[in-house]
Amino acid sequence: MSTPNTTANFNGARPVIDPDDAVMLLIDHQSGLFQTVADMPMTTLRRHAAALAKMATLAKLPVITTASVPQGPNGPLIPEIHQYAPHAQYVARKGEINAWDNPDFVAAVKATGRKTLIIGGTITSVCMAFPSISAVHDGYKVFAVVDASGTYSKMAQEITLARVVQSGVVPMDTAAVASELQKTWHREDAQQWAEIYTNIFPPYQLLIESYQKAQDVANNHEQLDSQRQ
Amino acid sequence: MSTPNTTANFNGARPVIDPDDAVMLLIDHQSGLFQTVADMPMTTLRRHAAALAKMATLAKLPVITTASVPQGPNGPLIPEIHQYAPHAQYVARKGEINAWDNPDFVAAVKATGRKTLIIGGTITSVCMAFPSISAVHDGYKVFAVVDASGTYSKMAQEITLARVVQSGVVPMDTAAVASELQKTWHREDAQQWAEIYTNIFPPYQLLIESYQKAQDVANNHEQLDSQRQ
Amino acid sequence: MSTPNTTANFNGARPVIDPDDAVMLLIDHQSGLFQTVADMPMTTLRRHAAALAKMATLAKLPVITTASVPQGPNGPLIPEIHQYAPHAQYVARKGEINAWDNPDFVAAVKATGRKTLIIGGTITSVCMAFPSISAVHDGYKVFAVVDASGTYSKMAQEITLARVVQSGVVPMDTAAVASELQKTWHREDAQQWAEIYTNIFPPYQLLIESYQKAQDVANNHEQLDSQRQ
Amino acid sequence: MSTPNTTANFNGARPVIDPDDAVMLLIDHQSGLFQTVADMPMTTLRRHAAALAKMATLAKLPVITTASVPQGPNGPLIPEIHQYAPHAQYVARKGEINAWDNPDFVAAVKATGRKTLIIGGTITSVCMAFPSISAVHDGYKVFAVVDASGTYSKMAQEITLARVVQSGVVPMDTAAVASELQKTWHREDAQQWAEIYTNIFPPYQLLIESYQKAQDVANNHEQLDSQRQ
Amino acid sequence: MSTPNTTANFNGARPVIDPDDAVMLLIDHQSGLFQTVADMPMTTLRRHAAALAKMATLAKLPVITTASVPQGPNGPLIPEIHQYAPHAQYVARKGEINAWDNPDFVAAVKATGRKTLIIGGTITSVCMAFPSISAVHDGYKVFAVVDASGTYSKMAQEITLARVVQSGVVPMDTAAVASELQKTWHREDAQQWAEIYTNIFPPYQLLIESYQKAQDVANNHEQLDSQRQ
Amino acid sequence: MSTPNTTANFNGARPVIDPDDAVMLLIDHQSGLFQTVADMPMTTLRRHAAALAKMATLAKLPVITTASVPQGPNGPLIPEIHQYAPHAQYVARKGEINAWDNPDFVAAVKATGRKTLIIGGTITSVCMAFPSISAVHDGYKVFAVVDASGTYSKMAQEITLARVVQSGVVPMDTAAVASELQKTWHREDAQQWAEIYTNIFPPYQLLIESYQKAQDVANNHEQLDSQRQ
Amino acid sequence: MSTPNTTANFNGARPVIDPDDAVMLLIDHQSGLFQTVADMPMTTLRRHAAALAKMATLAKLPVITTASVPQGPNGPLIPEIHQYAPHAQYVARKGEINAWDNPDFVAAVKATGRKTLIIGGTITSVCMAFPSISAVHDGYKVFAVVDASGTYSKMAQEITLARVVQSGVVPMDTAAVASELQKTWHREDAQQWAEIYTNIFPPYQLLIESYQKAQDVANNHEQLDSQRQ
Amino acid sequence: MSTPNTTANFNGARPVIDPDDAVMLLIDHQSGLFQTVADMPMTTLRRHAAALAKMATLAKLPVITTASVPQGPNGPLIPEIHQYAPHAQYVARKGEINAWDNPDFVAAVKATGRKTLIIGGTITSVCMAFPSISAVHDGYKVFAVVDASGTYSKMAQEITLARVVQSGVVPMDTAAVASELQKTWHREDAQQWAEIYTNIFPPYQLLIESYQKAQDVANNHEQLDSQRQ
Repeated sequence: MSTPNTTANFNGARPVIDPDDAVMLLIDHQSGLFQTVADMPMTTLRRHAAALAKMATLAKLPVITTASVPQGPNGPLIPEIHQYAPHAQYVARKGEINAWDNPDFVAAVKATGRKTLIIGGTITSVCMAFPSISAVHDGYKVFAVVDASGTYSKMAQEITLARVVQSGVVPMDTAAVASELQKTWHREDAQQWAEIYTNIFPPYQLLIESYQKAQDVANNHEQLDSQRQ
Repeated sequence: MSTPNTTANFNGARPVIDPDDAVMLLIDHQSGLFQTVADMPMTTLRRHAAALAKMATLAKLPVITTASVPQGPNGPLIPEIHQYAPHAQYVARKGEINAWDNPDFVAAVKATGRKTLIIGGTITSVCMAFPSISAVHDGYKVFAVVDASGTYSKMAQEITLARVVQSGVVPMDTAAVASELQKTWHREDAQQWAEIYTNIFPPYQLLIESYQKAQDVANNHEQLDSQRQ
Repeated sequence: MSTPNTTANFNGARPVIDPDDAVMLLIDHQSGLFQTVADMPMTTLRRHAAALAKMATLAKLPVITTASVPQGPNGPLIPEIHQYAPHAQYVARKGEINAWDNPDFVAAVKATGRKTLIIGGTITSVCMAFPSISAVHDGYKVFAVVDASGTYSKMAQEITLARVVQSGVVPMDTAAVASELQKTWHREDAQQWAEIYTNIFPPYQLLIESYQKAQDVANNHEQLDSQRQ
Repeated sequence: MSTPNTTANFNGARPVIDPDDAVMLLIDHQSGLFQTVADMPMTTLRRHAAALAKMATLAKLPVITTASVPQGPNGPLIPEIHQYAPHAQYVARKGEINAWDNPDFVAAVKATGRKTLIIGGTITSVCMAFPSISAVHDGYKVFAVVDASGTYSKMAQEITLARVVQSGVVPMDTAAVASELQKTWHREDAQQWAEIYTNIFPPYQLLIESYQKAQDVANNHEQLDSQRQ
Repeated sequence: MSTPNTTANFNGARPVIDPDDAVMLLIDHQSGLFQTVADMPMTTLRRHAAALAKMATLAKLPVITTASVPQGPNGPLIPEIHQYAPHAQYVARKGEINAWDNPDFVAAVKATGRKTLIIGGTITSVCMAFPSISAVHDGYKVFAVVDASGTYSKMAQEITLARVVQSGVVPMDTAAVASELQKTWHREDAQQWAEIYTNIFPPYQLLIESYQKAQDVANNHEQLDSQRQ
Repeated sequence: MSTPNTTANFNGARPVIDPDDAVMLLIDHQSGLFQTVADMPMTTLRRHAAALAKMATLAKLPVITTASVPQGPNGPLIPEIHQYAPHAQYVARKGEINAWDNPDFVAAVKATGRKTLIIGGTITSVCMAFPSISAVHDGYKVFAVVDASGTYSKMAQEITLARVVQSGVVPMDTAAVASELQKTWHREDAQQWAEIYTNIFPPYQLLIESYQKAQDVANNHEQLDSQRQ
Repeated sequence: MSTPNTTANFNGARPVIDPDDAVMLLIDHQSGLFQTVADMPMTTLRRHAAALAKMATLAKLPVITTASVPQGPNGPLIPEIHQYAPHAQYVARKGEINAWDNPDFVAAVKATGRKTLIIGGTITSVCMAFPSISAVHDGYKVFAVVDASGTYSKMAQEITLARVVQSGVVPMDTAAVASELQKTWHREDAQQWAEIYTNIFPPYQLLIESYQKAQDVANNHEQLDSQRQ
Repeated sequence: MSTPNTTANFNGARPVIDPDDAVMLLIDHQSGLFQTVADMPMTTLRRHAAALAKMATLAKLPVITTASVPQGPNGPLIPEIHQYAPHAQYVARKGEINAWDNPDFVAAVKATGRKTLIIGGTITSVCMAFPSISAVHDGYKVFAVVDASGTYSKMAQEITLARVVQSGVVPMDTAAVASELQKTWHREDAQQWAEIYTNIFPPYQLLIESYQKAQDVANNHEQLDSQRQ
């Protein structure tokens, strides 16, 4: 086998997430910074970031959060993160822009004993990209969740995607992270995973609603309104 | 004064909503039909329709709902409507596409004794437009909430806007309806109205979060992280 | 009642289609001209034009077609028109750009004895607009189906919409025409109308497929794959 | 007949161009101002303006041109105008922004003895709109060629369209002007009109090229390359 | 002359701005509300609002400003307004959403003795539309500057445009307002007006820079770099 | 020769499809999942997926299909797949999200004895990407047909494209697959391939219609309508 | 130095075009195929393809052209190619889709004795990509001019870009090709190169026109119109 | 550790900017060339280029500028560059298109003794890409600031991004450059860096304004207008 993949630190392993080795890092998802996001609708970013928190909880991943000077214009962390991942550990920084430059943050990652990082950060160009590149250089397998991060233009997002891929980071979208963690519908919490997907692609909620109604109609032998006299 | 406005049935009155004379009609906001919406993100439509239900409740407007053959592919009403307007009256039809062709529906409107209608419907082209044109012809003042209705293309939305305006309907967006009902921030339920706006333009939620944090920092004399040693 | 609507020739009647008074005119839907269409995807136009032919047949409307020099670069009529409306009458012109300038065409319209015209034409700016304005001036009620017509730019479509509305034409989208002809789901050919809507908003086809499957699963007590051992 | 059209000065006549009564006014199509155009690709505007000049020549309409301080940053008239309408009369102004405020310009219009104006101007918001509104007020029938004019944003174009329609101006696109002047393909200069359309919707040029080749292949019994041995 | 224009309160006068009768009303251009604007880039809105302030100063128009609860999440007025129109009068409200519902505001307008209003407001749907419709009803000539106002979606802007036009308001873009106030380049402050246009269509600044350099090269007989040895 | 291409498992061979070694895998093209697709029009995806089925049949490739819990909201396979590839083998899974995690599916692939996989799947991010990455790791040459797969946003598609390319997968579009399978127009079934292209770029159908008419006109010496008396 | 560039066949040389070693291949730029192009405006493609022909002539590069069954619906080569590169050699094929599969075509390339290929082809996905990948495999340095090629969707273009880059092809835009061939403005034919750029970015034509006028005004001491009495 | 990153000349170092080794090169940001920019709003490019100049000054980087024949239609350098980086060194060329072909320019770079280049240039395709590729080949670490460069189409930008990444250049967006130079908010000039970000994502200015006002309200115990009697 010759697989010339250019991912970093996998050493021939299939470049996918191993849930047992993974930590989720949610960096600088703050109310002020969210006002600067323009590569996707802010509401989409907000749903995706919340979905990451939910799936980390379902999959029992450690979660580490941090914020960039939340006392200033950058604003507070959006509350959904800790609401949906109540076990998350918050690490305060001292002004460092690259979270990886903060020793407490790196120490918290190391303390998990895990070597696979799933990273979302706003703004993507900086708060996601800098720690991702740093962690790859320090030997971690890094999965960057580009659409659970947000930045100031579509072009900035595209440039950042090219840069992190060039550095050996594996790019992911939010749905792919969910599915690599879930792995199968043959599990007891399947319904909770289905609800996560409604956060990632909201038409899934309509599908569930319509499906349920169609089954109810069949099961209850309900008549079509248009056939009533 | 010569105001050549071309709105129908106002007879010289200012063409704005009188909350004391208004009924809200929410027509065919169904899970299946929502899958066909393409003039705006479906999630936006869903938030706007829910916002209408909430504001009708706050402003104490009668609400009448109906659905088009919800036992078939059109699917059930989205649950938010009756969740946020629990006082809403549901009128079942017998297959009529134009809700105004259903005698029970028109009777329910008449029973309110009000002559001003605020109408949202999906699909806009049909479920909003047909009752709007019919009601204008029957002497009602009609306000069509174009962005709390949804249709299959932006072009279809534009054509429908032109058609209903040509017929004397007053076009509104969801925010304008909210503000004409609310009228002032000098009221006890101001905070609840603020929450409604977060459904219409979600950045408003970020503004509230950031505002609250900025005040907390000032009130608590909290130090900036970047100034910690 | 004071309805200042600015539609032409309705004389106080509700400005909607009366199927018993309507003729459908499908003008210059030709393979060459379709290559110049840029206000919507050409495939969308082609589906909408075919849908008009189908609904005219279902609703038993007379249909008159014509083409602009189909022996030249403008190309032949797309075959769907006469395939789905086999009763349509084709009127050849002698080079007149405005179909209404051709005496045979006007005579064919008059011969139907009907005074309500549903008009689609490509390019919208010319082949739909000119006959529409002419027919309004000659006393017809005219419904212009803007999205079953196509033109060379979105801006040209918007200009034409403004122009025909200014002249008293009623603008319609394809779905609205279908629904004003169908009127109710309480009819024997309801399924055929449902199929027409799959041409206008194709997700409707997915809805029907999913609905049928969901009912089959319920009726057949089919097990979810994810629950199989 | 009751045609409530809201065009100005037609007095019941069909609101279309009468070539024998029409003058074409091409206002401020200058190299500098073209750099500010953003409601359509500048190349499209340039092709459309040139097309107006060509069709005026073919249809033997008087053409009057003018420019706004062409010695400054606004730049010179694009050369195509006078190249394709060599009979056009250029009227210099003295700084007036609204060409209709310049007595020489109005005098030149009056000197033609015609009462129907076809107006294109850049920027649309000003150089087309102001003379159009002024001329309507002075009793002219005015056709504004919105897509042979250009302005600084799509929104500005839409606002201007609404404003001029509100004032009784008839909005047109470039193709509609060509076709109302040409009227029929049954004329000796048909080929020259076909070439004008290649300027308005360039795929028409491909149609002509492909049509000619297809006929040549048939007439010359040319073999398909794929059938050669 | 029969000009069926549908503008309100002009009584047959040409529907253009008379600078000697005009007041400029700049309503709720606040830092928080600007975060909700999505019908145009916020930077564009900010430039346009500043341009209105500048041109009011140049044209010596009275300016009245107001804000909606600037102590809360809506935020403070952007500073450019009073910076560029230092003579502007600020009127505080008491929570009324429609500025026209505040007696002090209406009194300030009346005190100017002028009957023509140029109105910009954010959000367009509410803060511009409500006072515009109210003022038309009170007999004012109203010009609504749609692109110096901002709202939460393009669709909301389009709906609002249709609504205010229906009520007899004249829609304007920022450039048209500037040019109707300036009227001619033959004036001493021409250069200052040119600078205003660089705020409305920024390529104009490039034109001025390039023009100046080209003239300098000619006047100084500067050699092209590519011709240097 | 030094070709630093980064495709996996080609071992110096030209990275193109060898039809004699290829299997086509069509994964999870289901009616429900199609409602979540937003990186391209759903109708486009549906045409492309059908085109893959058709070309596999023409080129005599083995086809393997599968679905993700089609008894639930994901819905049934779209019928076109098996309609146009009646020889396709359907493999039911037991809830595994990655089809490659299902032993029956992998066994079916191995049973073909082929080592080149052409993979389309919905959603791209998951159902196409996971099996592609897995199969590359297992030594297969993998061609991923990105535009015969669909996902929930354009950004998700771009992220997935970057990820699979990084892993050594060769990205293809539907037309490229068709042409690499067809190789030449000098074959008896050329007309059937032409019809496949009308599914991939529908203007090709117009070209065929116009070409045929132009030849008919030439062969039948048909007169232009515009030359008739 | 360690430059890990992944271009093919450069063997450490800077990956730029050597005009003395380059041949230009213009493949299947045909009137019919141009109707299927949707990744850029067709007029843009047509200008870019013509620009390639012009620059090859100026830079004295050999040019080889070919077409795919031009006797059928694909249509004839656009005439600009041979018009602007009259020295180009046309090679007829026998139905092969990949031009590199035609021995005459490869022989023509070899006969030039050059090893650097500049390739444009329509459709990009096939007619540009297949020969590019084939030529790289045969040891050529290949520059693919992606925006002088056209294909059926933006997504197809992006997929193809990723595929050819993965294979070691160097992607170029039309302007970059021009500038790498021209190298300096210090040459006698500088004006002819400037005209080529007006084909690639048409605002350059406006710049030249405005520049010339500004210099004329300075040199002729021409007065501004706005300063005339 | 195995990091297969494909950046050039880093020799295992983390591929980030070392401010102490970096020079900023700002190439051909000229008023005329800016008129040809279409991959982003020109105003955005202008803000980003100015931001680069400001941050170079704050971070004390050497800056070298140059222009391409500024005496001709390309126009003068935009003044912001030298205004915000008054220490910048301007190097005149003699017509060479690739600045790296000019010996004076390369000598100026060498004279700094630094080996890390941050490059912005207009047009991106040429003026940024050519020196970047050349400098990588000469052993420099190169960071290309793609969104502080501008080119004639989004597609041209994407092609150029792919090309420079393929050559080992590290792509950056303007915000990432700022943050890698700033490194921390724990510095005395933090406020000046904040102002730089308002140039890169202008909503940041609104955040600062709203934050300041919210704190003032808290600190001054200012009452809400809506609570005033």
